[in-house]
Amino acid sequence: MFTVNGTMKAIVKHHRGAGAQLKEVAIPEIRDDEVLIRVKATSICGTDVHIYNWDEWSESRVNPPYVFGHEFSGEIVEIGEKVYNFQKGDFVSAETHLVCGHCPQCLTGKFHICENTKIIGVDTQGCFAEYVALPADNLWKNPEDMPTDIASIQEPMGNAVHTVLNGDVAGKSVAVIGCGPIGLMAVGVAKAAGASKVLAFDLNPYRLELAEKMGATSTIHSGEIDPVREAMKVTDGHGVDVVCEMSGHPVAMDQGFKMITNGGRVSILSLPTKRVSLDVTNDIVFKGVEVQGITGRKMYETWQQVSRLLQSGQVDVAPLITHHLSLEEFEKGFELMNQGQCGKVVLHP
Amino acid sequence: MFTVNGTMKAIVKHHRGAGAQLKEVAIPEIRDDEVLIRVKATSICGTDVHIYNWDEWSESRVNPPYVFGHEFSGEIVEIGEKVYNFQKGDFVSAETHLVCGHCPQCLTGKFHICENTKIIGVDTQGCFAEYVALPADNLWKNPEDMPTDIASIQEPMGNAVHTVLNGDVAGKSVAVIGCGPIGLMAVGVAKAAGASKVLAFDLNPYRLELAEKMGATSTIHSGEIDPVREAMKVTDGHGVDVVCEMSGHPVAMDQGFKMITNGGRVSILSLPTKRVSLDVTNDIVFKGVEVQGITGRKMYETWQQVSRLLQSGQVDVAPLITHHLSLEEFEKGFELMNQGQCGKVVLHP
Amino acid sequence: MFTVNGTMKAIVKHHRGAGAQLKEVAIPEIRDDEVLIRVKATSICGTDVHIYNWDEWSESRVNPPYVFGHEFSGEIVEIGEKVYNFQKGDFVSAETHLVCGHCPQCLTGKFHICENTKIIGVDTQGCFAEYVALPADNLWKNPEDMPTDIASIQEPMGNAVHTVLNGDVAGKSVAVIGCGPIGLMAVGVAKAAGASKVLAFDLNPYRLELAEKMGATSTIHSGEIDPVREAMKVTDGHGVDVVCEMSGHPVAMDQGFKMITNGGRVSILSLPTKRVSLDVTNDIVFKGVEVQGITGRKMYETWQQVSRLLQSGQVDVAPLITHHLSLEEFEKGFELMNQGQCGKVVLHP
Amino acid sequence: MFTVNGTMKAIVKHHRGAGAQLKEVAIPEIRDDEVLIRVKATSICGTDVHIYNWDEWSESRVNPPYVFGHEFSGEIVEIGEKVYNFQKGDFVSAETHLVCGHCPQCLTGKFHICENTKIIGVDTQGCFAEYVALPADNLWKNPEDMPTDIASIQEPMGNAVHTVLNGDVAGKSVAVIGCGPIGLMAVGVAKAAGASKVLAFDLNPYRLELAEKMGATSTIHSGEIDPVREAMKVTDGHGVDVVCEMSGHPVAMDQGFKMITNGGRVSILSLPTKRVSLDVTNDIVFKGVEVQGITGRKMYETWQQVSRLLQSGQVDVAPLITHHLSLEEFEKGFELMNQGQCGKVVLHP
Repeated sequence: MFTVNGTMKAIVKHHRGAGAQLKEVAIPEIRDDEVLIRVKATSICGTDVHIYNWDEWSESRVNPPYVFGHEFSGEIVEIGEKVYNFQKGDFVSAETHLVCGHCPQCLTGKFHICENTKIIGVDTQGCFAEYVALPADNLWKNPEDMPTDIASIQEPMGNAVHTVLNGDVAGKSVAVIGCGPIGLMAVGVAKAAGASKVLAFDLNPYRLELAEKMGATSTIHSGEIDPVREAMKVTDGHGVDVVCEMSGHPVAMDQGFKMITNGGRVSILSLPTKRVSLDVTNDIVFKGVEVQGITGRKMYETWQQVSRLLQSGQVDVAPLITHHLSLEEFEKGFELMNQGQCGKVVLHP
Repeated sequence: MFTVNGTMKAIVKHHRGAGAQLKEVAIPEIRDDEVLIRVKATSICGTDVHIYNWDEWSESRVNPPYVFGHEFSGEIVEIGEKVYNFQKGDFVSAETHLVCGHCPQCLTGKFHICENTKIIGVDTQGCFAEYVALPADNLWKNPEDMPTDIASIQEPMGNAVHTVLNGDVAGKSVAVIGCGPIGLMAVGVAKAAGASKVLAFDLNPYRLELAEKMGATSTIHSGEIDPVREAMKVTDGHGVDVVCEMSGHPVAMDQGFKMITNGGRVSILSLPTKRVSLDVTNDIVFKGVEVQGITGRKMYETWQQVSRLLQSGQVDVAPLITHHLSLEEFEKGFELMNQGQCGKVVLHP
Repeated sequence: MFTVNGTMKAIVKHHRGAGAQLKEVAIPEIRDDEVLIRVKATSICGTDVHIYNWDEWSESRVNPPYVFGHEFSGEIVEIGEKVYNFQKGDFVSAETHLVCGHCPQCLTGKFHICENTKIIGVDTQGCFAEYVALPADNLWKNPEDMPTDIASIQEPMGNAVHTVLNGDVAGKSVAVIGCGPIGLMAVGVAKAAGASKVLAFDLNPYRLELAEKMGATSTIHSGEIDPVREAMKVTDGHGVDVVCEMSGHPVAMDQGFKMITNGGRVSILSLPTKRVSLDVTNDIVFKGVEVQGITGRKMYETWQQVSRLLQSGQVDVAPLITHHLSLEEFEKGFELMNQGQCGKVVLHP
Repeated sequence: MFTVNGTMKAIVKHHRGAGAQLKEVAIPEIRDDEVLIRVKATSICGTDVHIYNWDEWSESRVNPPYVFGHEFSGEIVEIGEKVYNFQKGDFVSAETHLVCGHCPQCLTGKFHICENTKIIGVDTQGCFAEYVALPADNLWKNPEDMPTDIASIQEPMGNAVHTVLNGDVAGKSVAVIGCGPIGLMAVGVAKAAGASKVLAFDLNPYRLELAEKMGATSTIHSGEIDPVREAMKVTDGHGVDVVCEMSGHPVAMDQGFKMITNGGRVSILSLPTKRVSLDVTNDIVFKGVEVQGITGRKMYETWQQVSRLLQSGQVDVAPLITHHLSLEEFEKGFELMNQGQCGKVVLHP
C-alpha cells in the first residue's frame, strides 16, 4: 500500500493563550479502522473561535499544542486494513462526535448524547490542516458533484436541521433567535420544511440581511423593536409555534419563552455561559410548553436529512458562505468571525 | 332579525338512479346553533360523482331527494341565536364531518374518526345551491382576501395535508400513487414540506402533467414504466420513505407496498371498492412498515395547516382549478370529472 | 320540571384575608346547558389551601365572596333543557378547566392549554357545598360502583397521570420529586405503567411512608441523603430516565435536572413561586433533555386513563385518602393540609 | 491466551428434510471481534420448529448441514483480540440479527430492519450446542443472578415487548391474538405496562390457561365464542385500543381488524404464509387505524426494556417455561412444540 509520508501545513493551537500558529507538522498515521483524508475545504466554527481567543471554557477543556478545527470536506487518500465501506478517492465529510458505543444512550441509538463523547478538533487532532486521520465509522460520503465548501458546512447545518426538524414545522410559525451561521441555516431549513412564517431576531443588521436572503418572512432587530410584541403582532396575539434559541443570551432566551404560544416548542441549541433564570410557572408550566435541549446531530439521521435537503435544492446555503481564504490567511478568518461581519468563513488548504 | 326567505336554485339528487336536476327549492331555515351561508363557490368531489353516477355505495348510503355537495366557500347572511363566534358577513368554509362529541374518539380529541360521523351533502342537505344552513361548530373562517374558489377546495386539500403530514417528510422521498385532485395537492404539500423527491404515479398523462406543475420531481406513467423498478432506481435501490396511496386500485396499492423502504410509512386515503390482498409477511412485517388509514381532516388542526400553507404561498393550488362553471352547467362538470380531463371543477352559484 | 329551590350549606371564602366561613347560601340556578349536582364528596386541593391562607397569588386572582373548591363527585339532580348526554341520577365528577373552544389551542384539540381558561372554584362558584351547578360539557360520568371519595380525587389523579404518562415509562426509572398527594399518585401511576424503578423524594417522613405504600422502590429523605448521589447510585451512575417535578422548590428542581440521564424527560407540574435559575447549558442542552410543562388534564384523554386505571385496579389510591370529615369540619381539614400530616382530605356534605 | 479446543455436542440440521441429529462437531474458532460462549440454556423458537419440520420457507432459506438455534444464555470462555466491552466469565445472551451498519436503516438507528440482516442459527451457525462463537457487538450482558432459562428467553420476550410497547398501553384495552409463547409474554407485558383490559384469543385451552396465569383479564376460545362480538362486549361496543396479532391466521387477523376501535393500533408480529385479504376501506381507512409491521427487537432499546421488566419483577415469565430437557432430548422438545402442549421448552447442554 502506498503511504502518505512527510509533513503538512496545519493551524496549531500552540499554547494556553490567545491565537494560533501555522506550522509544518507530521502527516498523521492511521490505525486499522481509520482513513487519511486530504482536506479540500475546512470551515471555522464558533467553537474554534473560543479556542482561538482562549476563553474560560477552552482553559478547562483543551490541551495545546494540537491541531484544531472540525468542519471539513476532503478526499480519502489512504485506508486502514479493517475499513470496508470506503475507498480511496471517496469524497467525504465527518461527524464530529466520537462515541463510545456501549453507554445506555449509544445502546438505544441516541449516539449524539453518548455519555462519553469526544469531539474532533477539541479532544483529538482536528482538520485545520492539509490532512486529517479519522475513524471510518465517523465518515459521511458526499455526492461527487457537491462543492467542497458546501460539503464542509454540512456539520453545522446538521445542528440547524436537528434543531428545526425536532418537531413539526409545516404550516407553523417559527422564530429563530440569534442569526449566526447556524441560525441563518435554521431560517432556510424552516422555510424549506414548510413553515408559514419565519421570524429572525438579531442585533446585527448584516446578519438580518442574510436572514432575509435565507427566506425569513420577518427580520427583527431586537435592540430597536420589542421582539415579544413583534412576535405577538405577527401571530395575531397567539405567539409563535416554535422557537429555535441560538443566541445564548439570557435576555433573548427569556424573550423566546415569552413569545412562545401555549403548547409550543422551544428548542435550545445555544450554550449560555452562565445559569439562566426562567419563569418556569408562567412560561413553561401554565403554557404547557415543551423545551428541548439540542446537541450535535442525530447519527446519522440528521446527516441524511442535510444531504438530501442540499442535493434537492430545497435549502441553498451558498449565500451564507461569505468568505473563502487560504489556510495561511486563517488570522483574517478569525478576525471576521470575532467581528460578526461574515457568514461562514471557509479555508482552503 | 332579518330573515332570508323564499326559494333558491340547487342541484338536487332527485331519484335513486343516475343524474341530478337543477331545481328551485326552499331556502333552508336555521336552528339556534346554525348559520345561513350564501354560497360563493362550490367544488365537485369524487364522492359527488359517485352519487351523481349512482353506484353501489350510493345505493346503500344516500336517500334522495336531497341537495348534495359539500365543498364550498361563502358568506354568512344569517345567524342563529346561540352562535357566538361568527357574525354576518364572515367569509367561511366548512368541515364536512358532523361529529357526536361524546364517543371515545371525540372525547379524546380524535373527532375526525368519530363513531357517529355524519357527512354534509351525503347524510344531510349539501351546498350545491345558492344557500346552505350549517352548524356554527363546523365553520372555518377564511381570510377576506382568499379567492372563493381556493377557499372552496380547502376541504379536499385538507385530505391531502392530513395524508402527507401524518409523519415526517422533510428530506425524504415521497411517492404519490394516483394523481386525482387530492393526489395533485399531495404532491404540492410534500414539496412544500421539504420532501427531497416527490414521485407521482398515474395512468393519465393529463394529470401527470399537472403533477409536474405541482412540483413532482418524477412523473411516472404506471402503464408504460414499471412503477416499482422506477421507484427503486430513483432511490438508489432502497425504496421510497413515504407512500401516499390515493388510487384505490389493488394493483397500484400493492406496488406501493413493494416500493416502500424498510421502516417506511404507507398512508392510505383511497377507498378500494373490494377487499385487497396484501403480502403482509414480506411487505409489512419484515420491512417494519407503518400503515396508516387516513380519513377526513383533523378537526381543526388540519384546517389550520391548510389555511397557513395557502396564505403563506408555500402551496399554490391555482394550477389545479382547471374549470369554472355556473351552477346551471353542473352536468358538464360531472362529465369532465368522469373523463378525468380536469383538475378541480368549481361551480359558481 | 321539578326544581331544586331553597338554600344550602357552603364553605364561603368571605373576605380578602385568611380563613373561610360555613354559610347558608342560595342553591345555584342552572342555565340551559348546565346541570345541578348534589355533592357527595369533595376533596381539598393545594390550590384551595392557597385561597384559604390568602397568599399573594390569591390576592391577585380571586374575588371573594364566593364558594370555592373544585374536586368532587356527586349525583345529577336537575338538568338544563339543552343537555343531551346526561340524565338525572347520573354519578359524575367534573373537569375543572372551563375552555373557550375557539382559540388556536382549542381548535387543535389541546383544550387543557386553552388561552382563555377559567377554573371552577377559582374564577367561578365551586363545589365546597351541598350543590354545584356546572356545564354538561365539563362532566365526566363515573361508574356507579365507584366510591364517592375515590371519584372525587380523580381530578388531581388526572394531574399525576398527565405528568407520568406524557412519555414512556415501561421499563424505565422514574423519580418523583415532592410527595404531596399528586406526587404520591404519580408514584402509583408510574408503578402501574411498568416503571422498573420508582424513586420518591421528600422531606416529610409521613409522606415517604405513603410513597412506599404506593409502590416506590426507593424513598429518599432529601434532607438526610444527597438526592442526586442516591439517584446515581440506584441507576448505576447513568441517572434516571424520567423526572416528575412536583415540589416547586428551586433546589429540588435543580436536583431533578442533575439526576436526569442524557436524553431523559423532566415533566414539571409544580408551580414555583419565583423565577428559577437553571444550568441550561449542562443540564438541558448537552444532555439533550426534554422538559415538559404540565398543566391540567388532557380533555378528556386523561380522564379516560384515570377512570380505567382505577376501575381495573391497576392503581389503588385508597391508601392516600387519610381523612374523612364533614363539611362543618373544614377548618380541621385545612389545618391538616397546612401541616402536611395527611394524604387527601375528603369532605362529605 | 488459553484456547478452547476439541469437539462439542450440537444439534445439527443435517439434511434438506425433516428432523435433525445430535452430533459431535468441532468447537468453533473465533475472529478478532468475536467471543466464544459456553451455552448454559438454549430455548426452542417457532422458527427452529419450521427448520426441524423442513417447510417451504426452510427449503428456500436454509443451507444444511449446520448447527441451528438462536435463543440462549451462557458464559464467555474466550475473547477475541479486538473485543473491549466484555470479558471472560461474563454471563450473556445475544441479539439474533446480524446487521450491516451502513444501509439507510442502520445509518438512522433502525438496525432491526437492516436491509442486509442475517440471522444467527438461520444464516449462520447457531447455539443448539455446547459452545457458540458470536460477534461481541451482538452480545447483551445479563445480571449474574438471572436464572439461565429466563436469560435464554429474553430474545423472544423482546419480540413481545417490541410489539406491545410500540405505542401506548397504560389504561388501554389490549387484545393478544394467538397465545404461543410470544403471545403469552405479550399478555404479561401489556399487564405490566398498565393495560386496563387484556384479552387473550386462541384455539388451544392449554395456552388460554397460561394466558390467564400471565394476567389476561379475558381469555377467549376463538372456536367457541365469536371473538369480535366478545371484544365488543368487553369494550362497551367501542372495540379494543390495541391488537397484537401473533397468530398468522388470515381469519384471526381479519377478526383483529374487525375488533379494533377507530384510531386503534394493530401491531403484527406474525408471519402469514400466504397473502392476506383485508377490508382496507372499512377496517383501516374509515377507522383511521394504524397498522405496524413488527420484526426483531429494537437494538438495543428493546433489550434494555426486557432486562428491566424482568429484573424489577414487573413481568414474571417463569410460568411460561414449562419444560426443561437435556440437549440429547431435543426430539421430545420439538414434539412438544409441534403439539402445542407447552410454553417455552429449554434445553440444557
